[in-house]
Amino acid sequence: MTAAKAYIAAVGTALPGAPVDNQHLADRFGIDADWIELFIGTKTRHFAVDLETKEQQHTLADLAAQAGAKALAASGLEPEDIGFVVLGTATPDALMPATVNLVADKLGLDQLPTYQLQSGCAGAVQALDLGYALVSSGLHRNGLVLGGDVCAKHLPLDQDFASMPASELVNFVLFGDGAGAAVLTSEPVGARLALHRVLNRLTGLGREPGQTVEWFGANDRDSGKQPIREDYKAIEGAVPVMTGEVVWELLDELGWSDTDLDYLLPPQLSGRMTERIVASLDLPGVTEVSCVADTGNTSNALPFMQLARLLERAEPGQKAIGVAVESSKWIKAGYALEKV
Amino acid sequence: MTAAKAYIAAVGTALPGAPVDNQHLADRFGIDADWIELFIGTKTRHFAVDLETKEQQHTLADLAAQAGAKALAASGLEPEDIGFVVLGTATPDALMPATVNLVADKLGLDQLPTYQLQSGCAGAVQALDLGYALVSSGLHRNGLVLGGDVCAKHLPLDQDFASMPASELVNFVLFGDGAGAAVLTSEPVGARLALHRVLNRLTGLGREPGQTVEWFGANDRDSGKQPIREDYKAIEGAVPVMTGEVVWELLDELGWSDTDLDYLLPPQLSGRMTERIVASLDLPGVTEVSCVADTGNTSNALPFMQLARLLERAEPGQKAIGVAVESSKWIKAGYALEKV
Repeated sequence: MTAAKAYIAAVGTALPGAPVDNQHLADRFGIDADWIELFIGTKTRHFAVDLETKEQQHTLADLAAQAGAKALAASGLEPEDIGFVVLGTATPDALMPATVNLVADKLGLDQLPTYQLQSGCAGAVQALDLGYALVSSGLHRNGLVLGGDVCAKHLPLDQDFASMPASELVNFVLFGDGAGAAVLTSEPVGARLALHRVLNRLTGLGREPGQTVEWFGANDRDSGKQPIREDYKAIEGAVPVMTGEVVWELLDELGWSDTDLDYLLPPQLSGRMTERIVASLDLPGVTEVSCVADTGNTSNALPFMQLARLLERAEPGQKAIGVAVESSKWIKAGYALEKV
Repeated sequence: MTAAKAYIAAVGTALPGAPVDNQHLADRFGIDADWIELFIGTKTRHFAVDLETKEQQHTLADLAAQAGAKALAASGLEPEDIGFVVLGTATPDALMPATVNLVADKLGLDQLPTYQLQSGCAGAVQALDLGYALVSSGLHRNGLVLGGDVCAKHLPLDQDFASMPASELVNFVLFGDGAGAAVLTSEPVGARLALHRVLNRLTGLGREPGQTVEWFGANDRDSGKQPIREDYKAIEGAVPVMTGEVVWELLDELGWSDTDLDYLLPPQLSGRMTERIVASLDLPGVTEVSCVADTGNTSNALPFMQLARLLERAEPGQKAIGVAVESSKWIKAGYALEKV
């Protein structure tokens, strides 16, 4: 075992309300449940919005605070032991105050630095990367790292879904809401998951964004600007390749061979995409740890949900690599873990 | 001189278009120019939006890239010397991609970690704090730190300004758009401004937000929710006190007395507020470095604009303290510098 400079002491997650299955979604939208199963491969997801009443029942601050409270409790640390808070999200509750500060308030955390990273699917790993930097450098002994997303503002529920093109409909069946958290420590306590390396690298030079998500203010609320655009062809082409590059780079840096690896936590764009990514990697002895079929794509919450599942089964000495890819401007992200 | 663990090698700033003076603003809005001068104390500001045509002519990505290019050029470093990019903003161009990644693209920066901090008036100092952590810990030798804001989405220009209450009108005359940048280095090069300390601390536990800024998505564009709310009474009461606390804490930590201090870069909420803050501090031998009367409140760009003015006059051996306060959830932020 290599001595690590940071550890994950505990993980917590939060999902809003009851799971919404494909039949429920199909009935609500007047679309075909089998289509969702076949093309997306996701079986259930949770929404912060009630699909019937259209009311938002959970905020990102609520969900992140729930996840954070669970992680804190499981770590055995007290709020006063926490030196910093990082939150990664693409969908903050408001622009100001930053949601991370409302989460800190709910958790009784004060008199400490907080950082909220604006980020897409790589945001949880970016948050881990920042947390790793703050702990491994000796600046802080312990910190709370969070990620989560709530699509409530992006889900217009009064639409003719039946006649919507599949390329647009996909945004209503792909995503789910949720939050996750991890307590990072400089010493192995709690779950004792050594965080050996975090990779966080923009690779977007000269490349068109694969995804664009707009926000509107008082001045452009009435503009006809399209709120969300994706290039799913580009995403489907690039993400498996980038995932492989992250895995092999981490293995190489740590001097691990692919036979040393016990678990892979792959990108969770959708059930189908994850299957394709894992198949393309050809790592036969490695156990996949995924959650997307049950949670939907919860974006910045996903890696924490995978970590929670990893913790249920990892034995001392076992090694894992997690990967996230952000297609908005093509960020490679990953991390290497060892249960000690 | 104390040896520092990080240095500011260069600063760059960018302001959109020509300055808009109070008479221009008064004529456009049908209000009284003297009222702006008397109550706000700001003389000019720059807007990313053309007040006449209402077209947005500059994005945050454009302005931040301009500021970053100037800072890079002045530092003498090449893009490949830069190890990371941090951007602090309350008003990203879009939710995804994060604006920092578009800025990196424009500057030819790639294969490096980027961080975009969602933040209000303390965001530039939060970005400096993160940059300081990444450089002082030895993780990176050099990095680019940026801050900026563009209020284009928050400025509805078709309104009856003449009958608007002063409490609302203030949002149209207080702010300006712009961006700033600093190159941080582990060795003293270029401007050789030793960054001795950065303070970044949430102090919001149990306190109501002093400012709330909403964003809207496809689902709530039509909602009647108020986009911006401030409690200016709370802000006016708290900011001078918090500023003093930051100054005295930094002096104390560094073992500096107030007579050691040559320059103060105070919070820049408005010309009048800055006057009141400086008067309340009672630091007679210290020279104030402000920009708000010329630039308006450019939020996350302000500290870089003050730093640019400091660099024009600071002599080796001179010491400076800068302060920013975020009233959205009450963040104390400050930094201590020494020209070496």
